[in-house]
Formats: sequence, structure tokens, C-alpha cells
Amino acid sequence: MINSLKTRRTIRKYSDKEVSEELINSLLADAFRASNNGNMQTYSVVVTRSHEKKEKLAPLHFNQPCFKNAPVVLTFCADFRRFSQWCEASGAVPGYNKFLSFFSAATDALLVAQTFAVAAEDAGLGLCYLGTTNYNADGIIDALELPQLVFPITTITLGWPAETPAQPDRLDPQGLIHRETYKDVDVKALYAPKEALPEMQAFVKENGKPSLAHVFTDVRYTKANNEFFSDALLKAIKRQGFIF
Amino acid sequence: MINSLKTRRTIRKYSDKEVSEELINSLLADAFRASNNGNMQTYSVVVTRSHEKKEKLAPLHFNQPCFKNAPVVLTFCADFRRFSQWCEASGAVPGYNKFLSFFSAATDALLVAQTFAVAAEDAGLGLCYLGTTNYNADGIIDALELPQLVFPITTITLGWPAETPAQPDRLDPQGLIHRETYKDVDVKALYAPKEALPEMQAFVKENGKPSLAHVFTDVRYTKANNEFFSDALLKAIKRQGFIF
Repeated sequence: MINSLKTRRTIRKYSDKEVSEELINSLLADAFRASNNGNMQTYSVVVTRSHEKKEKLAPLHFNQPCFKNAPVVLTFCADFRRFSQWCEASGAVPGYNKFLSFFSAATDALLVAQTFAVAAEDAGLGLCYLGTTNYNADGIIDALELPQLVFPITTITLGWPAETPAQPDRLDPQGLIHRETYKDVDVKALYAPKEALPEMQAFVKENGKPSLAHVFTDVRYTKANNEFFSDALLKAIKRQGFIF
Repeated sequence: MINSLKTRRTIRKYSDKEVSEELINSLLADAFRASNNGNMQTYSVVVTRSHEKKEKLAPLHFNQPCFKNAPVVLTFCADFRRFSQWCEASGAVPGYNKFLSFFSAATDALLVAQTFAVAAEDAGLGLCYLGTTNYNADGIIDALELPQLVFPITTITLGWPAETPAQPDRLDPQGLIHRETYKDVDVKALYAPKEALPEMQAFVKENGKPSLAHVFTDVRYTKANNEFFSDALLKAIKRQGFIF
């Protein structure tokens, strides 16, 4: 049993203690043991430590404090470039520039990222995933100089924890598990315990909204932003040479 | 240190020993602790045990022996339906039917799948990921009766191991790690140890191809198949109500 899975929470504040290159390399080597499509290993990881690169990346991650504060940042990329280059170097003709290739390589990258995350947290490190990677992929591509067929999928900020926040709530697992076929659940009942949490009620009040759901739809993840960043994401994927 | 990460390999043959519902539920509850976008938990898991459903799904997974042989199969789905239904039930107007929503929910689902995989392997279970989920999503949607805004992202076959295959090779991790910016690597040197493996040389010979890369481009993952299944995947995503 991996106890760190049960006790985990996202960590956004890190101590000054260094995260050694040896530790990162060792955790990544373990992560690369994760399942991947056809053992093609269609992923790459870009490690950011320099002040200069962090300054470039910070606004792309909306200057989130966890980003500025982190000693190490890892950007996990879908990468069909290396494999395609190897095919070409062997005189074979690769055809890995379609949406399926993008999605398959993204899957590889996410399985590696999460294996890394589980291993890092078990080693006592704290981390935070940055969904902003999908919002500003175009700028991240420039900052990390990602060439054709390489695409930033997710980012992890990493360091030794300097906080112990409360564990966030989760929905009743039974509301997310379906047997044999998908069946709609009673959403009112499933979300009632979340809505009743004092911190959620405070959150609704702060935002001056009629319900927690409204905070999501009207403030945190609006339709207009969703449309804007969706188009930007599609454009960036095409820019990197993947065809739809 | 999670030792099972270092020693893991995909398991395709399972014993007759039952995998209890309690164990699956407990491993999934741990997996649901994984990071997710905005704590929206935009995923669902469909558990398949019945003979009838397996018969329907088997051809969609190309009748892979690991599928037919597995006591339990889990299909991890992107799911913006439940969250959207909750928004609507609260009188809020969700706008989570764009490509970004699909990709964000797919990310959530993959992080959960891999956390489940790590926990299951640490508990002694064996498993195999099925990439065929992305090839035949349309048929899987029918078989599992997945409604709008629910999409099958990956599948794991699960059971108690009845084999101990050799651990597969991996590329030198240093070839996949980039510092500060992405730099092309010497692919010939990086892939040389893989190409020199006796099992790879046998594989090339069996397939009657000039190189290992040719086995990938001409036999295993051809451009024509890639195009065909890419179009099918895009069509299935749109069918489920996500807009590009």
C-alpha cells in the first residue's frame, strides 16, 4: 500500500532546500518505466531551474505563486519528433503527424508525469500541476524552444514542502464508478456534501454568486475563456505540425 | 521509494483468482486523490466484469488475449457530463463542450488511470493498458452506453499475474530529459542499444524488414492506419458533443 497516495495534497509553497539533479533523474528514470504506447516512449521532459527561463514562463502560467516559488519546474511534452527522426535516420518513412499521434503521445506524457508525481510525493517532495500549460501552449513552445512534433502537455512545480494545507474534498467515489454501463447519477445528492463545506460556502459568498456551480461557470471556468483557450490550444497543436 | 515502479512490467496473463470489488473500490478511491483540474473531477470509470460486455468489447480491442483473459477491465473516461449536469441543476450555465474541455477531462482521466495502475501494481496486481481504446472509441461508446460529454480515454485489463515476462527495454533516460530548452539528440546513438537487443533483431528478421524502425512504420503503426484511426477518433469526440 502506498500511504502517500491517501495523504497527498497539492503543495504550492516550497522551502529553500535544493532538489538535487540526482534525485530528479532517479525519479524520472522510474517514471519512464510507466506503460507507453508500443514502447515508442513518445515523450520528453524539459527541466527548468534558471532564473531567466522562469521569468519567461511565469506570466504564461499567470504568475501563480507556486510557479515563482518553486526551485524546479518540469514540463512534460508529447514528443513524436525523436521517434520520427530515428525512423528517418533508419531510412523508414514515419507518418506520425496526425491527431491520433498527438493524442497517443500526450497520453504517454501524462502517464509519465503522474508516475513521476506519485514517486516524488512518496519521496517527501511537494508539487503542483499547472493546467495553464494548456492555455498558453504557444508561449511555452517559444520559451522552451520546442520544435515540430513536440508539444507541452502538462507542467509540475516541485520542491520540498513548506506548508501542510488541509486535504481537499473529493466526491463520493461511488458516484464516479459505473458497473457494466454508464448511468447518470443524482448530481444534487452527490455534490451536496461539497456544497455544505464551510470553505465552499465562504467561497460562494466571497464571489457573490447564488451557488458553488455559478462560481465555476461565471468566474473560474467561463464559457468565453473556454472558447478562447480552446481555439488557442488547437492552433498551437497545428503549429507544431500535427494534422487534424 | 516505491519499489514496484522499478520492477514493473506489463502483465497480459492472469490467474483465475478473483479481484474483489472491495479491492477495486479501495484502489480507485486512492486514485481519485490524484491532482485534477480545478477539483472538478471530470472523469468516470466503467468497470467491466460480465461475460456479455466482454464479448461486445473484445473485438473493439482487436481480441487481444490480455483482454479476453482478464477478470476485470476498467475503462477510464473523460466526463464533463456529471459536472455540467450539476451546474444545470444549480441553475448555472456550463460551457464545457469545447476541445479544451475534452483535453482537460482526458488529462484528469489519465492521471487517475495511472495512479490506479501504480497502486494496483504495488498491491501485486498485474495490468495492461489498451491503446485500442483510441482506435475504436465509437464502438466502445456504444458498448458502455456512454452519453454526451463522456469519452473513453484508456482501458486497463487487470488480474493477478500468471506470468513474469522480462522487463522491456527503455531508452537511456538522459536522452529524454532536456535542460532549460529542447535540444535534438543523436538518435542513432540513443537507439543503438535497443536495436542491438537479440529480441529486437529477431523481431526485425521475423517481419522481413531492413531495420527496427521499418517494423514500426511499415507493420505496427503505419501511416495509413494512423490516418484512418485519427479520423475515427476525431469523429467520435465530436459525436460525444465536444466542439472543435
